[in-house]
This record gives sequence, structure tokens and C-alpha cells, in this order.
Amino acid sequence: MNAQTQSSQTLTIQRWIEQIKPLDAQAMAAAEERQGRLTKPTGALGRLEALATQLAGITGKVRPRLADKVVVVMAGDHGVTAEGVSAYPQSVTGQMVLNFLAGGAAINVLARQANTRVVVADLGVASSLPTRPDLLDAKVAFGTANMAHGPAMSREQALQAIENGAALIRREINSGLDILGIGEMGIGNTTAAASIATVLTGHDAAELVGRGTGLDDAGLLHKTDVVRRVLARNRPDANDGLDILAKVGGFEIGGLVGAILAAAAHRRPIMVDGFIATAAAMIAVTLAPMVRPYLIAAHRSAEPGHSVMLAWLGLEPLLALDLRLGEGTGAVLGMQVADAACRLLDEMATFGEAGVDGRVGE
Amino acid sequence: MNAQTQSSQTLTIQRWIEQIKPLDAQAMAAAEERQGRLTKPTGALGRLEALATQLAGITGKVRPRLADKVVVVMAGDHGVTAEGVSAYPQSVTGQMVLNFLAGGAAINVLARQANTRVVVADLGVASSLPTRPDLLDAKVAFGTANMAHGPAMSREQALQAIENGAALIRREINSGLDILGIGEMGIGNTTAAASIATVLTGHDAAELVGRGTGLDDAGLLHKTDVVRRVLARNRPDANDGLDILAKVGGFEIGGLVGAILAAAAHRRPIMVDGFIATAAAMIAVTLAPMVRPYLIAAHRSAEPGHSVMLAWLGLEPLLALDLRLGEGTGAVLGMQVADAACRLLDEMATFGEAGVDGRVGE
Repeated sequence: MNAQTQSSQTLTIQRWIEQIKPLDAQAMAAAEERQGRLTKPTGALGRLEALATQLAGITGKVRPRLADKVVVVMAGDHGVTAEGVSAYPQSVTGQMVLNFLAGGAAINVLARQANTRVVVADLGVASSLPTRPDLLDAKVAFGTANMAHGPAMSREQALQAIENGAALIRREINSGLDILGIGEMGIGNTTAAASIATVLTGHDAAELVGRGTGLDDAGLLHKTDVVRRVLARNRPDANDGLDILAKVGGFEIGGLVGAILAAAAHRRPIMVDGFIATAAAMIAVTLAPMVRPYLIAAHRSAEPGHSVMLAWLGLEPLLALDLRLGEGTGAVLGMQVADAACRLLDEMATFGEAGVDGRVGE
Repeated sequence: MNAQTQSSQTLTIQRWIEQIKPLDAQAMAAAEERQGRLTKPTGALGRLEALATQLAGITGKVRPRLADKVVVVMAGDHGVTAEGVSAYPQSVTGQMVLNFLAGGAAINVLARQANTRVVVADLGVASSLPTRPDLLDAKVAFGTANMAHGPAMSREQALQAIENGAALIRREINSGLDILGIGEMGIGNTTAAASIATVLTGHDAAELVGRGTGLDDAGLLHKTDVVRRVLARNRPDANDGLDILAKVGGFEIGGLVGAILAAAAHRRPIMVDGFIATAAAMIAVTLAPMVRPYLIAAHRSAEPGHSVMLAWLGLEPLLALDLRLGEGTGAVLGMQVADAACRLLDEMATFGEAGVDGRVGE
């Protein structure tokens, strides 16, 4: 890739970033006013009321509806698995992609329950996957390089991953997407996510590194040491989201960054899943701070570092079910809650409509 | 009601209590074994795994399904509203029942989303409600007496409320009910629930009394004072669930107690809603300690005393969305989570089925 291509790609991303506008204050005020007239005590729906107001602001609609819920599962492999940071072999990434396509994974089960579309995309799986219409080929490369020895990918590849992710979500938006859940699969990607979060939050690596798919105590210490070495070797610039993504990220993480930017540019809410999806959200916010109010945190992962990351983003998750699976599982549950919040705002009767008396003395 | 009838009623309740058996340990062990073979890291579904195991134990099925989700909304009025304990007039109870039947309340909206049946029952509304097939007439009386001056109801009425609630749920079980959500409507019933919880937990009334539908600071102090007077006047016996229900309870609370006993006797899980439903669960557990493992706490209410009550029951709620509406709204959301937990256990592929490699070195 030559300098001219790179610069045009940077411009593409810059263009989306400029498209991201503040939430619609007028729609939010009208939604709040309506909440006050619905047949319930003021504020009795708690966080569902604030969530509905946020969704009104995002969509610009006073009574938004989330008919087309989409969860994207982006997959990619990580060269850093050579350092022995995961309890599972790299082969599992590609095998799980096939499991997603066969409908046998947790994300498929939850999506069927929630009437949510699952979109599976290969951003950088290390193996060759079959060509089939339900697997979107957005592959940047066959896995990242081992970031313990140098950058995970080039800056051009980081841009390509973002571009691929954004292009994919633009297509889904054209097909009707009302809300986007972001999920991922990639053996080794909690190491990348912990590295990203360590750079951005400035916390010690030990606070961000967790057991991932199930490391024991020795494995946890080793993984923490690997993250320290990765950061010492690469020294990512905390003010440059692209530099962080390239040096210590992953292709599926880059794809999610692009997905977030594209969704926000099109005024679509983004339901952030767990540890890895949140790392992608942190990079997106670093590139485009205006993204933040478009984000909703679905759940608090059992991975302890996740709380540090959510605090950095200023997000309070909707659910706390101790999930630590990824795939977008928490996001699908969270989108159900968002859907409920919108339905309540839209469908409930007002005191006037239902002939229900108001507060004493009012 | 003469002594003979009362005694036969007590016997009826006693018979259900004796029907409540421990959870099925064999089904639970088999469910756990299956969890370990599904395509996810061990324990990665967090609380959804423990929940599925509990549901296997309740139903006695290794792969339970919750096809028929039912939320019952029991309504009743409270004489103690004469003390000015609520921000809304008593008329709202009956008006909201009509709103439930018209489909305009929050519970209707959430139930439509979650494909859940709403069963509305009048256990003791102070006004005359229309006769219609979708409103179950289980009325014990036209509202309770003012418990600031004496018992809310007689012991016979308390038994009748339990009996009516249980009979109603037995019919639903015959129609296919797989899981029961318990909800309620009754202006003034947070005062009854706080009184029940104060007796049973032994905490100070100030820890249990909250703002209900929206009292201001002065109203909160007044309500706390009313609860203290109610308890001083009635002195309910903390070891006698029926005495507590009769002296400081409500007809809809008694109905929910019966619903819980009937559901547990038929090995159906009970999703407990918020503050008032939890008070009913506390009485049920006082009458029949074997009920406890059949209970699932849907959510932590914004009513501060709810946490004290959940701790007394030893329940950790699934959701924390700051709801304080009642009606069964939290229970419907919680039943969705329980349904998800069962579907995951039942529908996910195993490592063997999906051809996914296991942990490194295993």
C-alpha cells in the first residue's frame, strides 16, 4: 500500500468522524416529557427511562423503535498466542466461526430468543475459512503478528480493518439496522484488549489483565508479564487510537472500531459487549470523542479489568450477570433491554388516555 | 366463617406445604455436567449457568424449557391509605386494573415483548370492577381495614387470600404454566410490605420504609411513623406467617403467598418481582421454608429496603435497573433471563458436536 492510498483511507475515516453529531436535545426533551405522562409514578422505570431518552437522542426520534436488532461477530487471530496467553489453542477461533454459522454457539441461541440478526465476519482469522454467503469476508490478513516482538499490524492494516468493519456495517444499515451489538471471537484477544486498556487508562497492567477463557494463577501472572513486555516493546501513543490499534490491537478489534464509527455517523445506537468490545469502544472514542453518547454498555464482564474500562468510558452497564464469553452475548441481552425501554416509551398509555388519576393534590 | 371451615383451610395450605420437595439433585448434576461440554469456556456464562442448574433442580428436567411464561398481577386495596402514606389516591388501584386489561400499562408492554401471558386478578380492590373473562374474581373483601387501628384482615381472610391465590395458579399450571412471575397493584402496599419486612428482618422500620410511588422527605418520615404505629398496635408474631399477613399484610400479598406455595408444590420456578412481591415471598418462606430454592429474585428495586429483604431471603437478584413500579415488570424481564439460561443449556452445541478443540493440554 502506498502513501497515497493510506492518506485516502485516513480521509475516509476522518469523514465519518466528522459526520458524528451530538445527540438530538429536542427529541430527548420530548421523550422525557412523554415519560412524565405515562401511567406510572415519575421515574418508576428507573434506568429504562434514561435509556429510552438516550435512544431518542441518538435516533432523533421521540418514540424510537428498534425493530431490526443486529449483532455483528467479528473474528480475528492473534500472533501473541505464541506466548501461551490463552487456555485454548488458536484453532478454536476458526472452529467457533463455523459454530456461529451452524447456529450452535451461545450467541446464536440468545439471538434466536431475542429475534436478533447475527452477522459473522472474518476480519483476520489465521485459517482459510469456507466461502459462503453468511460469512462476510473482510479479512485483512491471516492473524496479527506476535506483538511481543513488534507491532501486531501495520498502520495501513489498522486502517484497513477499520474501513472493512465500517463498510460492513454501512451495508447492514442500508438493510434496516436499528441498533448494533458488537461482538467478537479471537483466541488471545483479551491480551490485546488488556494492552489497549492499560495504555489508555494508565492503570497498571495487573489491574487490566484477567483470566480470559480460564487461566490459572500462574497463567494469569504470565499473561500480565506478556502485556508488560508488549507495551515496553511497542510504546503505543495513548493519544493516537490508530497507533494503539496497530501496535497492540487486533483485526477484529479494528473492525469493531470501524463498526462503531459507521453506526454513530448514521445515528444508530451501539450496544457494547464485554472486555474486548469495550477496548474497541475505547479506541473509537480516542479517535472520535463524539462517539461516546452513542454507546451503551450492555453488561459488566466477570473479567475484573472491565470495570476500569467502563469507568474510563463513563458507562454504567445495564446487566451484571458475570458473563465472560464475548461473541456479543451480553450485547444481545442488552439490546433486549433497550428494545424494552423503547417499547415502554412508545406503547404505554398516558394517564389521560387510561383515565387514571394523578398524584394526590395535583 | 366457622372454626371448622378455618381448620379445613389451614389443612389445605398444610397439604401444599407438605407437597414442596427439595430440588432434584440428580437433574442438577446432569445439567452441570452438560454445561461443561458446551462450546464455551467453563463458567463463561456466569450466573446464567447457575440459574439453568437451579431451574433443572426445580423442574426435575436436565434440559428444562420455559415455553409458557405467566405473570400474575394481583390487585388489592389498603385501608392504611387513610393515613396518607401514598402519593396517589386509592382510586388508582382499580383504574390501573382496567389499564392492565386494556393493555396500556408497563407490564403489558413488557409481556408483549417477552411473549408472556398476563393474568390479572382482583384479590381485594376497594371498588367494584366489571365482570369480564380476562379479570379473575378472587376478591376476599373490598380492601383491607386500616391497620393503624387494628389488624388489616381476619385470620380467616388471610387464609382465604392464600387459598384464592393458590387456586388461581393451579388453574394456570393446568393450562401449561412453566414459570410464574409474581406481580401486584395496590395503592398503599409498600406500607404493608415494609411492615412485613420490619417484623421478619428485625431491622428498624426506617431501613425498610421507602418513598413508594414518590413521597417527599416529609412523606417518608410520616410513612415510617405509620409503620411504627402499625407494628406497635398489632404486634405480629414473627414466627407465624399467617399472623403477619393478617395483621399487617394485604389481600394481594396473601394471594401471592398462595401463588408461591402452589407453584413450588408443582415444581414451577417463581420469579419474584420487587418490594411487595418479595414481602409475599418472605411470608411464604416463613410458612414453608422449603419454598426458598424455588424462588428467583428478578431485580433489585430502587426502594432501599428491598436489599435488606433480599439478603434475608438469601437471594441475589438478576437485574439492577432501578425499577420501582411493581406490576410484575421486573419479573417479566427476569423470566426472559431465565428463559435464555434454559435455551443456552438446551440448544448450544457441545465441543464434540461442533468439532471445536478443547483446552490446551486436555
